[in-house]
Amino acid sequence: MTEMTLLAEALAGIAAEVELALDELLPLPEGPEARVVEAMRYAALGGGKRMRAFLVMETARLFGVDRRCAARVAASVEMLHAYSLVHDDLPAMDDDDMRRGKPSTHKAFDEATAILAGDALLTRAMELLAEPDTHDSAEARCELVMALGHASGARGMVGGQMIDILAEGETLTAEQIGRLQALKTGRLIQYSAEAGGILGRANLHQRHALMAYGRDVGAAFQIADDLLDVEVSSEEAGKATGKDAAAGKATLVSILGIDRARAQAEALSAQAVHHLDSFDDKASHLRALAAFVVARRS
Amino acid sequence: MTEMTLLAEALAGIAAEVELALDELLPLPEGPEARVVEAMRYAALGGGKRMRAFLVMETARLFGVDRRCAARVAASVEMLHAYSLVHDDLPAMDDDDMRRGKPSTHKAFDEATAILAGDALLTRAMELLAEPDTHDSAEARCELVMALGHASGARGMVGGQMIDILAEGETLTAEQIGRLQALKTGRLIQYSAEAGGILGRANLHQRHALMAYGRDVGAAFQIADDLLDVEVSSEEAGKATGKDAAAGKATLVSILGIDRARAQAEALSAQAVHHLDSFDDKASHLRALAAFVVARRS
Repeated sequence: MTEMTLLAEALAGIAAEVELALDELLPLPEGPEARVVEAMRYAALGGGKRMRAFLVMETARLFGVDRRCAARVAASVEMLHAYSLVHDDLPAMDDDDMRRGKPSTHKAFDEATAILAGDALLTRAMELLAEPDTHDSAEARCELVMALGHASGARGMVGGQMIDILAEGETLTAEQIGRLQALKTGRLIQYSAEAGGILGRANLHQRHALMAYGRDVGAAFQIADDLLDVEVSSEEAGKATGKDAAAGKATLVSILGIDRARAQAEALSAQAVHHLDSFDDKASHLRALAAFVVARRS
Repeated sequence: MTEMTLLAEALAGIAAEVELALDELLPLPEGPEARVVEAMRYAALGGGKRMRAFLVMETARLFGVDRRCAARVAASVEMLHAYSLVHDDLPAMDDDDMRRGKPSTHKAFDEATAILAGDALLTRAMELLAEPDTHDSAEARCELVMALGHASGARGMVGGQMIDILAEGETLTAEQIGRLQALKTGRLIQYSAEAGGILGRANLHQRHALMAYGRDVGAAFQIADDLLDVEVSSEEAGKATGKDAAAGKATLVSILGIDRARAQAEALSAQAVHHLDSFDDKASHLRALAAFVVARRS
C-alpha cells in the first residue's frame, strides 16, 4: 500500500476514536438546558477530517503516551475547533449557512443557542484538560491548558479572526496575510502537534521540532485551503467555496497566483517533514500528513 | 464604624486591587488584532461591584493565601463574568444596549468584535488559572480550572442562560426558576467563594461550608437583583431595569410577590451567615456581604 493509503486508514481510525471520546466527554442532553447540549453535540460530532486530533494522537504516539489520555486531548482540541467554527459562521461574523455539508449550528438551531453552544464547547475543552484522567502529572495538565489558551486566545486564533474581519476590503501584503493565517488557523494546528510532546514529557529539542512541524503544516494547510476555495466547487468541498473572492478577502493565492501559492505550500510541506528528522518510523504518518494537506481536495 | 461602612471600604479596596490585576493580566492592544483586545479591556475594566472578586479575596484571606495569587483568581472570575455579560447583551441574546452605565460592548464596538472579545476573555480566564504564578501547586491550579469550568459550562452558567432564553413567555414554577437562577448566576458566585478554599488547601468541611455560603449568597443576590428590576429606576441602577416584565420573564418576585421574595432573600442571607460559624472574625466581611446583597440599591 502507498503511504497515502496508510495515512487515509490512520486518519479514519483516529476520526472514529476521537468520535467516541467526544461522545463520552461531551455532556448528555438532559434537563431544561438540553438544547444547548444538543447544539454542542451537533457542532462537535460526526464531521470534519479531525486533522487536529490526528496531530495530537500521532505526536503522542511518538512518546508511547497512553492512548486514552491522548484521545482526551484530541477531543479537547476538536471541541475548541468546533466552537471556533460555530462562532465564525454566525451572521455577525462570516455568515456561513453551511458547514461540513450540513446547516451550520445557528441555522440548525438559532443564533442564541449557537453562541452559547460555542461558549460551552470552549469551556469544556479547557476543563477536561485539567481533569486527572488527562495525565498523571498536574504540571502537564496545566501546560496543556496554558498552551491551548495561548494558541486560541486574543494573541492566537481569536486575534486572527479579528484581523480577518477587519481586513475585508483591505489590501494586505503577503506578510500581513501570513501573520493573519498563522494566528487564525496556524496556532491551533501547531498546538495540536505540540500537545503530544507535552503529554509525552518530550525534551526541549523534541518540543521545538514538533512545534516547527506544526507551524509549517498549518501554513501549508491554510494555503491549500485557499487554493481549494478558488479551485473546487462547493459541492465537492462540502462547504461554501469561492467565498474569499466574493467577500473581497485577500489570500496568498490572490496575491501570489495559483502556481506560486501551490509551490509555497509544497515547500512548507517539505520543510515540515524535515523537522521530523530526529524521529524514527513512528513519525511516518506525520510525514505523510504533511504531503496530504497540500494534495487534498476537500 | 458600622459593619456596612467597613464592608463598603473593603469592597472598594478589593475593586481597586482587582482592577490593577485585570490591567496586568489582560493583553495590551497591539498589532492589527488590537481591536479585540480593546473590547476585552472595555468589557472587563472599570466597572461592576466586583462581588465575585471580593468573594475570592475574602475566602482566600481566611487561609492566609498570598494576596497576589488570590488577586489573579479574582481577576480570572471577573473576566469570566465580563465575558458572560458581553455575550448575554448581544442582540441575539438579551439585546441590552447599556451595561454598567455605559454602552454594552457590541454597541461600543460591533457584534463580531463583542463575540470575539467574549471568547478571548473566557479563554484568558481559564489560561491564567493554569499559570505557575497562580499557585505553587499544579494540582490546585487544575482544581481551579475544573471548578470554574464546572460552574460556567453547559451544566452551569451557560446552561442557565439557555434555560432563561427558552423560558421567555413560558410560565415557570418557583422551583424551575430557582434552578434557572442557581445555574445562571449562582454557580459562578458559589465558585468564587469556593476558590479561596481551593487556594488555601482547605479541608473538606471548610470547602463545603464555603460552597454552601456561596450558594445561599448567590440565591439571595439573584432575588435581590430581581427586586431591583421592579423597584428601582434604570438611572439609579446604571443598567436597564423593568426588563424582566417587559420580556415576559417570570422571576421569583413575579411569582411570590415583592414581600415574600424579600423575606426569602433575607432568610437565605441569614442562612449564608450561619454557614460561616466555624470561621473566626476574619470572616466578618463575608458575613456583612451576605447582608449587603439583600440591602443594595444597584
